[in-house]
Amino acid sequence: MLLNSQRFQDIAKREKLDALIASTPENVTYSSGYWALSQWIRRGPQTYVILFPDDLEGSQIVAASSLLDLLADQDIWIRNIQRFGYFQTDQSKTLVTALDQRQAELYNAPALDTSLDALCKVIKENKLEHARIGLDELGLYPGAWDKLQDRFPKLDLVRASDLFSEMRAIKTDDEVGRLCRAANVAETSIQAALKVAKKGVTETEMSRAFHHATVEADTLPVLCCIGFGLRSAMPNVQPSLARLNEGEIIRFDVGGRYKHYRADIARTAVLGEASEKIRTYNHALLCGVRRGMEVIRPGLKAARLYQEMMEAVRRNGLPHYRRSHVGHGIGIDGYDLPHLTPDSTAILEEGMVMCIETPYYELGFGGLQVEDTVRVTADGVESFMTTSGELKII
Amino acid sequence: MLLNSQRFQDIAKREKLDALIASTPENVTYSSGYWALSQWIRRGPQTYVILFPDDLEGSQIVAASSLLDLLADQDIWIRNIQRFGYFQTDQSKTLVTALDQRQAELYNAPALDTSLDALCKVIKENKLEHARIGLDELGLYPGAWDKLQDRFPKLDLVRASDLFSEMRAIKTDDEVGRLCRAANVAETSIQAALKVAKKGVTETEMSRAFHHATVEADTLPVLCCIGFGLRSAMPNVQPSLARLNEGEIIRFDVGGRYKHYRADIARTAVLGEASEKIRTYNHALLCGVRRGMEVIRPGLKAARLYQEMMEAVRRNGLPHYRRSHVGHGIGIDGYDLPHLTPDSTAILEEGMVMCIETPYYELGFGGLQVEDTVRVTADGVESFMTTSGELKII
Repeated sequence: MLLNSQRFQDIAKREKLDALIASTPENVTYSSGYWALSQWIRRGPQTYVILFPDDLEGSQIVAASSLLDLLADQDIWIRNIQRFGYFQTDQSKTLVTALDQRQAELYNAPALDTSLDALCKVIKENKLEHARIGLDELGLYPGAWDKLQDRFPKLDLVRASDLFSEMRAIKTDDEVGRLCRAANVAETSIQAALKVAKKGVTETEMSRAFHHATVEADTLPVLCCIGFGLRSAMPNVQPSLARLNEGEIIRFDVGGRYKHYRADIARTAVLGEASEKIRTYNHALLCGVRRGMEVIRPGLKAARLYQEMMEAVRRNGLPHYRRSHVGHGIGIDGYDLPHLTPDSTAILEEGMVMCIETPYYELGFGGLQVEDTVRVTADGVESFMTTSGELKII
Repeated sequence: MLLNSQRFQDIAKREKLDALIASTPENVTYSSGYWALSQWIRRGPQTYVILFPDDLEGSQIVAASSLLDLLADQDIWIRNIQRFGYFQTDQSKTLVTALDQRQAELYNAPALDTSLDALCKVIKENKLEHARIGLDELGLYPGAWDKLQDRFPKLDLVRASDLFSEMRAIKTDDEVGRLCRAANVAETSIQAALKVAKKGVTETEMSRAFHHATVEADTLPVLCCIGFGLRSAMPNVQPSLARLNEGEIIRFDVGGRYKHYRADIARTAVLGEASEKIRTYNHALLCGVRRGMEVIRPGLKAARLYQEMMEAVRRNGLPHYRRSHVGHGIGIDGYDLPHLTPDSTAILEEGMVMCIETPYYELGFGGLQVEDTVRVTADGVESFMTTSGELKII
């Protein structure tokens, strides 16, 4: 299960919630395992998961009729489905496979007209008209919140997108497995990209090599910042027709989605001889991440981690280093909690998976970056990385 | 320019709008050319484009400081930028390239705290406090609409997501070029996938071959429904470890993003000998799409096109054919206007780019589908397709 059910129940109890409703693609998939294609690739299509803290097994999914097939074919622990909308499928007289039988069962159940109608039905059937419900506002169609409140004036609706973020901060084993794999695929893809590095190669050619390795590992391309030379100073550099020259930086800040879970790691290389400035600065940045690995443990304040990493960079060769954060959680979203900022009040806990990073961008020079993915353990930290953040000389 | 500026100005005039504000990733990129990474891959990050019908050149972009580099590196026709948020970049004493100089200019401009502060500043500076403004509600952070209205009580805010959809229905030449390329990449990728088709291959292996061809053409994987045999009856079938057998259907409903523009086409193949039912049904579905090609021209009602295509399928071997729609527009979003439904009031116009499709899903049998991408011309229709929707026998 992706859902951290204990944490969900603890948070629901603390907030006195009778139910919690997911609406963003991330929270829907996280809560149920259900990946509802349309809402992931477009804005607007609605899917909901209604979680009950006192009756987890009774949780429900509100799904479009056009996406019921994915409910039958995916690993979803919630069995109660309320569908909405019209979708035509024909059925042979005999259905042999369990997959076809489950689909038929879903298609043959009555459909409501709209996603809101379906959600209202779930609320009524579960006698929640006077309940206190956390509603994930970020994925809702504009106006849906008010319409729901109009239909149930006694309903106590609470904004819950932040509660989902809080839940998701501590990863379950299923999530950890996917995140580790996603991070390793990103590393493998960087190595594949560096194999085509030579004088005259374009950023685009290198990104193709990167993507080939990513899709070969059944991972979808998402983040692919690959920049050469001066262009490496662009934080979000997108591959162009710029060609690689001797002595130039190649900066990667990359990561795809493996089984819906994100990677986000960074490595830096140089073609031929690296200048002293490049070597010194990259070493300083690496010292920052290494300092993070020395101090991360449950109970450490995120703000303290920020200070430790920043000071290590400054002490080791980049005295003017400034930065808004030194990392962030990662999960089904690319930016999960905690945020490793100077004014964060977060405290690290076992089971957090985080990207710790020390990027440096200097216009007129270039960009250098070390970013690792790590997990907070019972007494420290473990890295998912199989490669080092040291400057790679190609 | 992606934006259909004449159509924007016509619609703004009709709706008496002083300005139109884009907020979804699709509408922001469409309006300005600006692809603001974070808002495309996550939910929440805000970017706005404020278009002025009476002063198009004066249009503005509200952008996060962390994404200014992409403004400097992309082909964006809007020069007025209002940034928000803190982001650290260092700058060498000498900046040689135009790219670095433009970035420095953007970074050195004053930043507001939040996206809403920045939007308010644009409204004030352009003396729009009493104006009538169309606001694309679908990409707004929850609560932003009310906050904006609170800050400017006299502002006449109008929901505008539907107006953007209306604008986007008639494609500009830049859009047509990208859409045609995206469609052709999908075809090439299907052909590459079919090259690995043989007894025992898995859907996942075939999807890898598909994705390799897609990324080789600098296109990002988005939609990849590939299903074998009984699984091909799932409308959204996601590649699994199911293995291909003799006589089984292979159904593709696929398409990526080329320069942010979507493809969505469908083809069907069979390994070895196809049953008479498969051949008859696929022929009927193909007749539906061919009938569409015969009748599409400016002035045709979408509802009439639906009837013509449905009747052609029923007449040619699939008499019980039922379906909610026979296609949809396609553009920077996978579902643009018009929707080809029986109760549509839309009338086809020159410059519409549409996917016309006749999918058939039968549980216990399989799924068959023909889906082509076409453009309505001055006196008829042109197809983007280089391959036929006939059943492919492998």
